[in-house]
Amino acid sequence: MTLLNKTIENIKPIDEELLVSARAHWDSLVHPTGSLGELEEIGIRMTAIRGSIPKRFDKRAVVVMCSDNGIMDENVSSSPKPLTKSLALAMNMGKTGLCALCKDANSDVIIVDMGIENFEGQEGIIDKRISNCSRNFMKEPAMTREEAIRAIESGIEVAEELINKGYEILGTGELGMGNTTTSAAVISAILNLPAKDTVGLGSGVDDVQFSNKLRVVDDGIRLHKPNPEDSIDVISKVGGYDIAGLTGVFLACASHGVPVVIDGIISAAAALSASKLSQESTNYMFGSHIPKERGASYALKEIGVKAYLDLALRLGEGSGCPIMFKVIDSAIFAMNNMTKFSDTDIQNVLVNIRDK
Amino acid sequence: MTLLNKTIENIKPIDEELLVSARAHWDSLVHPTGSLGELEEIGIRMTAIRGSIPKRFDKRAVVVMCSDNGIMDENVSSSPKPLTKSLALAMNMGKTGLCALCKDANSDVIIVDMGIENFEGQEGIIDKRISNCSRNFMKEPAMTREEAIRAIESGIEVAEELINKGYEILGTGELGMGNTTTSAAVISAILNLPAKDTVGLGSGVDDVQFSNKLRVVDDGIRLHKPNPEDSIDVISKVGGYDIAGLTGVFLACASHGVPVVIDGIISAAAALSASKLSQESTNYMFGSHIPKERGASYALKEIGVKAYLDLALRLGEGSGCPIMFKVIDSAIFAMNNMTKFSDTDIQNVLVNIRDK
Repeated sequence: MTLLNKTIENIKPIDEELLVSARAHWDSLVHPTGSLGELEEIGIRMTAIRGSIPKRFDKRAVVVMCSDNGIMDENVSSSPKPLTKSLALAMNMGKTGLCALCKDANSDVIIVDMGIENFEGQEGIIDKRISNCSRNFMKEPAMTREEAIRAIESGIEVAEELINKGYEILGTGELGMGNTTTSAAVISAILNLPAKDTVGLGSGVDDVQFSNKLRVVDDGIRLHKPNPEDSIDVISKVGGYDIAGLTGVFLACASHGVPVVIDGIISAAAALSASKLSQESTNYMFGSHIPKERGASYALKEIGVKAYLDLALRLGEGSGCPIMFKVIDSAIFAMNNMTKFSDTDIQNVLVNIRDK
Repeated sequence: MTLLNKTIENIKPIDEELLVSARAHWDSLVHPTGSLGELEEIGIRMTAIRGSIPKRFDKRAVVVMCSDNGIMDENVSSSPKPLTKSLALAMNMGKTGLCALCKDANSDVIIVDMGIENFEGQEGIIDKRISNCSRNFMKEPAMTREEAIRAIESGIEVAEELINKGYEILGTGELGMGNTTTSAAVISAILNLPAKDTVGLGSGVDDVQFSNKLRVVDDGIRLHKPNPEDSIDVISKVGGYDIAGLTGVFLACASHGVPVVIDGIISAAAALSASKLSQESTNYMFGSHIPKERGASYALKEIGVKAYLDLALRLGEGSGCPIMFKVIDSAIFAMNNMTKFSDTDIQNVLVNIRDK
């Protein structure tokens, strides 16, 4: 069996009994039932994923899949293609926005080269390059089906290695000029949405670039007719190596019972792709910030995952994940450390209610 | 001059030049301009408030104003009045939800008795009691004007003492059965809104209690005709000691250049009251979670303060504040630790863009 098939087969449904017992645990804690809202829901799902109420996830990382996109030939971005390589190098020096946010949140940053144009490799960056750059999907499919599978399996390999090293939660980040376009195309293809519903401003495009994004998403899908039920077909025709790699990360986390955090539209496109390969995989996913890109909202809605942070982030890189790690810390800490109604001291102070 | 007048007079407008230089600082950091969204806005305003880019706010607390409300006689809550005292005692043992969330966020909890019914005082709880309980505003004003001023000044005293001890940021919490009703009344009175726009479910009322809440808010305002331009008049007629105390905390923080975080509807009613006493005070306020109670949203909108955390919290106590402290940590850490475009290493990797 292939790594991909084995990974998908190993994804278990969420343990319904653990969901019930975790909710009962919250209900035993001193507070009005359900009043900690989403913190309770996060803690409940974490418990079902981990098999018992987890302690703080101390070992954590954001996996940053980096790759270049042939669709950049269609003038769909305000940034030049070589910026992918530049930012990967800067990130490997710990010098991007994500690096600072991860340091603050005690998270590692794991950088993966999935196909950065003209990149010769560097210590500290995991080499999983599929090719030098995906192809321009206005002319031909972005990659072959075999390349798409290899890219997804590369993501699985990266995540499994981290999980074997003891990582307890992963975030999903990316670097790749043009990847808000490929992500919009993947979401449009899977959800049968017109480009106008999924294309956004990315890191800031002008009017010409914006209309180019709209055009290539609609025309690319019309040209290649990807099968919406087959994420591999969609990714290979209009996606990118970064989306494929993150799809593998989502599947591997679900397969190994590790929670995984979604960031923005690229990550959401990968999460949506993973959900089509395994509906159960969505149970292991957690949203972070409310995305500025509209396509991401459709993807999150489809997979039934909430976003919690309204911070107007549009940096990408995975920047919502480390902040979400801290919110998850709050949920888990409260779940472990709040007092129970059965506590003797609480029983004593509650007496004065019953006396009245 | 009274403490209240002196405090209001000392509130300075935000330093516009510092806002500009703080934004220029962000623009000098390696990321697309503005792409860290609200994290940048938070950092910019913090810089203007503190006079320079702040370091991590290590010394922090949530101030919890506790008091009972005579309006409880009208059956407006699912909880019994003595629960205020019980929860204050539980909180003083470190055993409520807020205590756990604060411990996780390295924040202290400061408990203040503003008028808890039948409470004899306890070490660890600051005694600022105005009376044993506010009055039922369906029969008479909740308190006298003098009591309202004394309650606001008590809040100022508490905050000033904390600031003198070195606290760098404060959150605003509360305990008080019936206080979602008094808060809705204060917001309705100031914003001239019908009860249906400001009354919510609180910690969970039944249909009778909900219609009682609607009735007392509309009828209380009709009966006492508080002057919407005079927060002291509004608070004294339909408010509570907790709202008054928190109003003082907001004013003191603004007066001393200390940022202060809003929690839910009680805190928002106090923030709105403070804004009517000093419009400038809103520059020192930061939202935390997006409130479930509709009245709070109107109050936040009026004072121009955003909320960032969509967590469906309805615990009260100030529970949104410690989580927001951690988001503020992220903003300030990034502002202090991101790399500048002028960094030599960054200059070197960016070369490969210019080469293309």
